[in-house]
Amino acid sequence: MPVTEMRDHVYKILELVGSSEKSIEDAVQNAITRASKTIREMKWFEVVQTRGHIEEGSVRHYQVTLRVGFTLEE
Amino acid sequence: MPVTEMRDHVYKILELVGSSEKSIEDAVQNAITRASKTIREMKWFEVVQTRGHIEEGSVRHYQVTLRVGFTLEE
Amino acid sequence: MPVTEMRDHVYKILELVGSSEKSIEDAVQNAITRASKTIREMKWFEVVQTRGHIEEGSVRHYQVTLRVGFTLEE
Amino acid sequence: MPVTEMRDHVYKILELVGSSEKSIEDAVQNAITRASKTIREMKWFEVVQTRGHIEEGSVRHYQVTLRVGFTLEE
Amino acid sequence: MPVTEMRDHVYKILELVGSSEKSIEDAVQNAITRASKTIREMKWFEVVQTRGHIEEGSVRHYQVTLRVGFTLEE
Amino acid sequence: MPVTEMRDHVYKILELVGSSEKSIEDAVQNAITRASKTIREMKWFEVVQTRGHIEEGSVRHYQVTLRVGFTLEE
Amino acid sequence: MPVTEMRDHVYKILELVGSSEKSIEDAVQNAITRASKTIREMKWFEVVQTRGHIEEGSVRHYQVTLRVGFTLEE
Amino acid sequence: MPVTEMRDHVYKILELVGSSEKSIEDAVQNAITRASKTIREMKWFEVVQTRGHIEEGSVRHYQVTLRVGFTLEE
Amino acid sequence: MPVTEMRDHVYKILELVGSSEKSIEDAVQNAITRASKTIREMKWFEVVQTRGHIEEGSVRHYQVTLRVGFTLEE
Amino acid sequence: MPVTEMRDHVYKILELVGSSEKSIEDAVQNAITRASKTIREMKWFEVVQTRGHIEEGSVRHYQVTLRVGFTLEE
Amino acid sequence: MPVTEMRDHVYKILELVGSSEKSIEDAVQNAITRASKTIREMKWFEVVQTRGHIEEGSVRHYQVTLRVGFTLEE
Amino acid sequence: MPVTEMRDHVYKILELVGSSEKSIEDAVQNAITRASKTIREMKWFEVVQTRGHIEEGSVRHYQVTLRVGFTLEE
Repeated sequence: MPVTEMRDHVYKILELVGSSEKSIEDAVQNAITRASKTIREMKWFEVVQTRGHIEEGSVRHYQVTLRVGFTLEE
Repeated sequence: MPVTEMRDHVYKILELVGSSEKSIEDAVQNAITRASKTIREMKWFEVVQTRGHIEEGSVRHYQVTLRVGFTLEE
Repeated sequence: MPVTEMRDHVYKILELVGSSEKSIEDAVQNAITRASKTIREMKWFEVVQTRGHIEEGSVRHYQVTLRVGFTLEE
Repeated sequence: MPVTEMRDHVYKILELVGSSEKSIEDAVQNAITRASKTIREMKWFEVVQTRGHIEEGSVRHYQVTLRVGFTLEE
Repeated sequence: MPVTEMRDHVYKILELVGSSEKSIEDAVQNAITRASKTIREMKWFEVVQTRGHIEEGSVRHYQVTLRVGFTLEE
Repeated sequence: MPVTEMRDHVYKILELVGSSEKSIEDAVQNAITRASKTIREMKWFEVVQTRGHIEEGSVRHYQVTLRVGFTLEE
Repeated sequence: MPVTEMRDHVYKILELVGSSEKSIEDAVQNAITRASKTIREMKWFEVVQTRGHIEEGSVRHYQVTLRVGFTLEE
Repeated sequence: MPVTEMRDHVYKILELVGSSEKSIEDAVQNAITRASKTIREMKWFEVVQTRGHIEEGSVRHYQVTLRVGFTLEE
Repeated sequence: MPVTEMRDHVYKILELVGSSEKSIEDAVQNAITRASKTIREMKWFEVVQTRGHIEEGSVRHYQVTLRVGFTLEE
Repeated sequence: MPVTEMRDHVYKILELVGSSEKSIEDAVQNAITRASKTIREMKWFEVVQTRGHIEEGSVRHYQVTLRVGFTLEE
Repeated sequence: MPVTEMRDHVYKILELVGSSEKSIEDAVQNAITRASKTIREMKWFEVVQTRGHIEEGSVRHYQVTLRVGFTLEE
Repeated sequence: MPVTEMRDHVYKILELVGSSEKSIEDAVQNAITRASKTIREMKWFEVVQTRGHIEEGSVRHYQVTLRVGFTLEE
């Protein structure tokens, strides 16, 4: 969904859920790190939903749903 | 989008449309059955939209759009 | 809203509420059955909202709001 | 959210999640049955979200989020 | 969209825009008054949007979009 | 939904789907042309959804859902 | 949902439906008046939906759904 | 967002929050009155959100968020 | 809202309505042309709503609401 | 999301972003052309968002986000 | 809203607002900590809105609205 | 959109996009810091969207869209 400089590319959008015990930002990075094993050329993301798991009155994990755009290579 | 016990996984979300002449539940199952031929480890779904086809004043098919989450295996 | 084979038609969309003591699917059919008395050529529907009435801790009726598309005949 | 005959009441809205292995309707009823142990005078519900759990390519549970209205007694 | 006592009826929903120089409530009533000339058995309404017209720094008209439900008579 | 000069009218809103092989604009016009056979005094429209049909990798039809407002004549 | 001066409080949000034969404002006040019998420290509200009941072409009641925030006392 | 008679103008949309102890309509007017000190040619508004402040079980202020359109003069 | 190469800038978002007798694209350009008289450094836009005016069964004007982002210069 | 004649298929939905210097329609076609290199049996699309890039007061590219449905072959 | 392992429970959803001078994550935890004084068995949360208070050009507090699910014990 | 103690003010709402390599909170602060050069009396913000830029499998920038409210001085 970005308007980047690479205007001639077609992007495909992928939806991922990442989690982290530390922070929302870390959950985002964990999802992207895992996806980068098979997908090259990821360019941007958008947070769709932020959730988490509670244990004994404390946040145990943050869980973030992302839409991630990557270029379809020619 | 679930907060399951398997907290370390990254989920990928897939969007499917299934249909059935019988019921909404059957349309959900038909989409999942078809997708399970190629995707292992589907864990949860979410109904996005429920629609259908009418013929001569009767519902002919239910057609349900789903988001389905599955774990990306390590 | 469908992309059917009948591509040259113009559709009109009607909004209806049907109810049933039995199921969501039955409430959909009841609305369509009633509307088919005066409207021919209904082709598809889309569930907008699912609600219901409770009596003494039991669901008494399901009440489903639908958008229904029908072709405007030439 | 209904416009019932009991116009002078003030309603309070409660949000619940019920589940069932059988159907969406059964998940709705299970949530209402459980809530009726402590809340009298529930009058209506509205489905907010329909989801579920998948095991080995089959729907294992439907899980329905409801808003439920009940009258605040004078 | 209501869960009224008249549970067996099928409702049709109509969308109207009414306006008034006086108030939001009056714009609602004006739309209903005009529609009641041709539609009997209107039972409920829902405000979809509230807008208006400004002239020289003053609200000149309120303009309210409504969804109105009426019973389809047997 | 407009705030036009004709402030005393009550509008009724109609929902239509039009299609065209050429363009989004043409699909809008086709829906309005068809509806104008029976409805006079259409004043404005609003695009609700833009969709289409694909055949062999090419857009075959654009299909546009519109809300159309027309004045209820006194 | 407000950003008030009382920044250290945790708010709980309650959802209510109030009604009135007179006006939207009066329906809001009626819901709050009833809730204030059991809940102290309500601080703000937000209108979620405005609806009503029609009898013989006239608005009989306004019915307003509110989210109400109150402080959880230490 | 209106479709007025002045079709050649480009509108700019401004977002404002007004408040009043009296009514929703008065909160709308107060926002417009204040903005009219610096902005000429405001033509229409649209209510985005209606909220308020509660003190001791009574509505103390209505607070209305508006989008206001004005013409950019040539 | 874009993720452009100019990552250090802060963007301000402006909302505009443009119109054209020819096409949706032309209505977008007309709004941007008019705004560019006073705002330099507009970088991207997003279509919020597409509407139009009807006269005697023909689209008379397209009217497009845009959000436009521009960089705040250092 | 369509209710097509091919009722027994399960659809998978893909999300794409295409761009064009010419028009919204051309951006849609460009995304579909690129995706058709690897995906057969695309059947329909739905426009999710229309955006673009501005250079020196002119639209430089339209950028359209699409959901595209294709049949999962047996 | 989660699909956890505890499939037989009925969940109740509570809406809270928490705040913190430090971070969004800390505001989430503060709301949960306060609620855990009276509610046992909170299992998950979902961020509904993230807001805050500004003083002299600096963020003074983050204020996060949460939906929190807890099991209704048998 | 807040219900602050300063009840007599009219607020104007501004939409901004800020970015940061560090965190979501830092992107919020960067937007506010930049805007505070020209706008005094900013009182609150609301996060509209959280996005970011990816380079070689790592988040390179967070990019947050905010609505910011400030008082119009008398």
